[in-house]
Amino acid sequence: MKEKLKTSWKERLHEIIYEADTRAGKLFDVILLVAILASILLVMLESVEHLDNKYHNFLNISEWIITILFSIEYILRVVSIKKPLKYIFSFYGIIDLLSTIPKYLSLFFIGSHHFAALRALRLLRVFRILKLARYIGASNKLLISLKASRAKILVFLFFVIILCVILGTIMYMIEGAENGFTSIPRSVYWAIVTMTTVGYGDIAPHTPFGQFIASIIMILGYGIIAIPTGIVSSEITKNNSNSIDINTQSCSHCAAEGHKDGAEFCYNCGSKLN
Amino acid sequence: MKEKLKTSWKERLHEIIYEADTRAGKLFDVILLVAILASILLVMLESVEHLDNKYHNFLNISEWIITILFSIEYILRVVSIKKPLKYIFSFYGIIDLLSTIPKYLSLFFIGSHHFAALRALRLLRVFRILKLARYIGASNKLLISLKASRAKILVFLFFVIILCVILGTIMYMIEGAENGFTSIPRSVYWAIVTMTTVGYGDIAPHTPFGQFIASIIMILGYGIIAIPTGIVSSEITKNNSNSIDINTQSCSHCAAEGHKDGAEFCYNCGSKLN
Amino acid sequence: MKEKLKTSWKERLHEIIYEADTRAGKLFDVILLVAILASILLVMLESVEHLDNKYHNFLNISEWIITILFSIEYILRVVSIKKPLKYIFSFYGIIDLLSTIPKYLSLFFIGSHHFAALRALRLLRVFRILKLARYIGASNKLLISLKASRAKILVFLFFVIILCVILGTIMYMIEGAENGFTSIPRSVYWAIVTMTTVGYGDIAPHTPFGQFIASIIMILGYGIIAIPTGIVSSEITKNNSNSIDINTQSCSHCAAEGHKDGAEFCYNCGSKLN
Amino acid sequence: MKEKLKTSWKERLHEIIYEADTRAGKLFDVILLVAILASILLVMLESVEHLDNKYHNFLNISEWIITILFSIEYILRVVSIKKPLKYIFSFYGIIDLLSTIPKYLSLFFIGSHHFAALRALRLLRVFRILKLARYIGASNKLLISLKASRAKILVFLFFVIILCVILGTIMYMIEGAENGFTSIPRSVYWAIVTMTTVGYGDIAPHTPFGQFIASIIMILGYGIIAIPTGIVSSEITKNNSNSIDINTQSCSHCAAEGHKDGAEFCYNCGSKLN
Repeated sequence: MKEKLKTSWKERLHEIIYEADTRAGKLFDVILLVAILASILLVMLESVEHLDNKYHNFLNISEWIITILFSIEYILRVVSIKKPLKYIFSFYGIIDLLSTIPKYLSLFFIGSHHFAALRALRLLRVFRILKLARYIGASNKLLISLKASRAKILVFLFFVIILCVILGTIMYMIEGAENGFTSIPRSVYWAIVTMTTVGYGDIAPHTPFGQFIASIIMILGYGIIAIPTGIVSSEITKNNSNSIDINTQSCSHCAAEGHKDGAEFCYNCGSKLN
Repeated sequence: MKEKLKTSWKERLHEIIYEADTRAGKLFDVILLVAILASILLVMLESVEHLDNKYHNFLNISEWIITILFSIEYILRVVSIKKPLKYIFSFYGIIDLLSTIPKYLSLFFIGSHHFAALRALRLLRVFRILKLARYIGASNKLLISLKASRAKILVFLFFVIILCVILGTIMYMIEGAENGFTSIPRSVYWAIVTMTTVGYGDIAPHTPFGQFIASIIMILGYGIIAIPTGIVSSEITKNNSNSIDINTQSCSHCAAEGHKDGAEFCYNCGSKLN
Repeated sequence: MKEKLKTSWKERLHEIIYEADTRAGKLFDVILLVAILASILLVMLESVEHLDNKYHNFLNISEWIITILFSIEYILRVVSIKKPLKYIFSFYGIIDLLSTIPKYLSLFFIGSHHFAALRALRLLRVFRILKLARYIGASNKLLISLKASRAKILVFLFFVIILCVILGTIMYMIEGAENGFTSIPRSVYWAIVTMTTVGYGDIAPHTPFGQFIASIIMILGYGIIAIPTGIVSSEITKNNSNSIDINTQSCSHCAAEGHKDGAEFCYNCGSKLN
Repeated sequence: MKEKLKTSWKERLHEIIYEADTRAGKLFDVILLVAILASILLVMLESVEHLDNKYHNFLNISEWIITILFSIEYILRVVSIKKPLKYIFSFYGIIDLLSTIPKYLSLFFIGSHHFAALRALRLLRVFRILKLARYIGASNKLLISLKASRAKILVFLFFVIILCVILGTIMYMIEGAENGFTSIPRSVYWAIVTMTTVGYGDIAPHTPFGQFIASIIMILGYGIIAIPTGIVSSEITKNNSNSIDINTQSCSHCAAEGHKDGAEFCYNCGSKLN
């Protein structure tokens, strides 16, 4: 009990920002999630020309508020962790920085419009908060099943791509440039559009023989969708019985995540967990 | 026995309208179902301009008949239940009222055309009668499986939407307004159209690099459809334990077993089965 | 043994035409299958205008040959069965007749062109021969699984249709006639095109709000495809262990089919099987 | 041990080229894979007109280098095997030859442009190297499952095609040539496009009744995709427990492949394996 009272403000901040086991930690995650979604909405609305013309000032000020909030959060993240450099050069550390900078750049450079799109990277930050989703208990088993079937699905997708290249080349020879199949890459693009049953219709076969081959591709695509589905189904069925529960703690020393529920020491560096 | 005979007309009415265990109750549900479907057909046909011009009077009178029938049903529902207010402010109570009112409004207001569309809400009433469907015995286990996999599927759909927002933003940057990707929301709409393999073709990538990214989105969409399917499959497999395809009769003459359901004669000795 | 030798030519003919357990019976089925496929090819080629202009005589004579062959087969079928009327008014009896008549009619009536399309019904006859497919042993279990999950899938499809009607009506109100949603039936058609991920693109939402609703429909359609798949998967998994073998015999007395392998008596009328 | 030292250079070459169990064998396969993919990229880029105009010399020289490398590989393959004729007339032997010849032909014949497309056949060679993929251990069980469900899936695809022919013919009668359904084969093509949920939109129904039938086809197609998925799912689930490990050795005597891991003698000819 005494140990808990002694925890410095840094440790408390770490608990709030990096973990989601305490009430404050959960609240922080929820607020962050709302802020990220709001900022994404801003980026979206800004891209709609007639909205940007009408509400330019409102959108601009909102964007500044969110940028400053994210900057404060970034500084707090750096301050509250024991090895700041590890965080700064981690995947999320770089994204946190990249999605905050563009607005500041716009002060110094005119035409930094293209950097603005970087702000969309903020959405990736949602995935960090989605450790929240582990509380649902559902996505955890799902991830294990998906990891187990990853190799098979990659082999399958590789096979689909090879098939599309071969079939696209065949269609390029059959239909030719006069029917829209102007080059092999474009024909392969068409084959992928068809095989995956998307079917835009921007390119479509015109010759009877081309339509015959296209029919075969469609039926193939309709049939082989069964393969990844079968792989994942069987994997999930298998994993439906035995489960591993992981909590959302992250080590305050080395930032390792994925600790077993009830673990007292970090599996990575051996330091004590809260 | 005496208690049953004493049941007031209110209780009998409640049994007929709200339940489906008695013959009268089932009959009421079937009639209501037919009336709802007929009224939906009317709403549909009215919306087809050349049909409305030709048969306006017939459609108008039919609509009045159905509106009056539904009004009577509404009043009976209010009268026969013990807590009328609870029904009136329940989900179905509000729908029952909203789908009846528009026709009456057309007497007092000119141009209440827009309220007329509310009548389509009647279709929602079908779901109430679909408690009938539980009698088929099939949809019941299905609902249990779906409820069990609801959390996982929501997580999955949330993930798909995030992916579409990120990919849509990327395509907005690659293709730009000159190729139809005029804003980020529109590009996200395109990403959803592509990821779900719908593929209208109203917006389609034109640059080679855009088509390359589009191909990746399609193959992703083709692959990750496996996930919800796998979730539901395993859940249903788990809930699906007992089945009856063959009956348990054994021939009283030769003791052969495994007779087909509905078989009248023994497949082995030809003697009559019970 | 003696009984078998005594079998009259009628019984032998019945064995050849209606069953597929003997060598002659299998050969007959294969020849019939080829003839049906050839006749379907003829119907197809005739419908292609420039081919019909070029090879009219060849196509016409071939059609006559096949029509006469099918007429002979029809007569033999009537002769060799014990209850001819039952066959004549059975599903396949009517199809056999309807698909033979149109050519004869063309002798007496000019402009019996429309009856000619009836010949396409011949393709339905393929399904009768497909009892051959039962020899693969594969489609048998499949059919049992499908029959078992029929009720659930019908409930599901019914639910999809209701959903499409509601969503179509909503889109009719949002988009309106100026964006191609000219009537509710047409909007429902669009909702089905979208929900099933077909996505022609002949009708597509133009307003931002319409595109938002459309996105929801697509994601819904992408997600709920998991339901029928899950139903069938679990059903097949269940039936994969315990199998029921059914042979292709049909009772010479009452024409009942689907007898268990090794059954000596008809389960329907109790008469002896061959 | 002594035996291994005595192995002639032919046997060593065989080990390197035809097998992937040794380090040199794996390296050879990886280099070959890269060369094939590079050559396919060349074929693709050559087909893009503006790239071919710009970098014609670079593409031409690269193509010559790869052609000569493949020619050397072909000669080594012939030399290192004990029965060269068997290799030369095998499936891969013919592909190896056909994909090398076109470039040489271009020296002697002007306008041998059409033979150039044969070079795309090289992609088929990737599948030979994909015996590498067996090391992932994943695709092996997958192949067993797919082989087991092959018969069922063929029956299913056959059924889908019959359904498309019947539905296409019906739509030809309903919609007719004025709505784009100009002939039965074209209508069948449309039915396949719709049933498989591809939905190009190059042909689409215009009459209300045609749209009604189209809706039924779509819902059918949406529902019956469940069948192949269910078949494969249950098959993979079944095979998920018991596995057979096969290594990549091929017999130096008879070229038989698919030896069990640890096998010392060829199952086909009985000669010793390395």
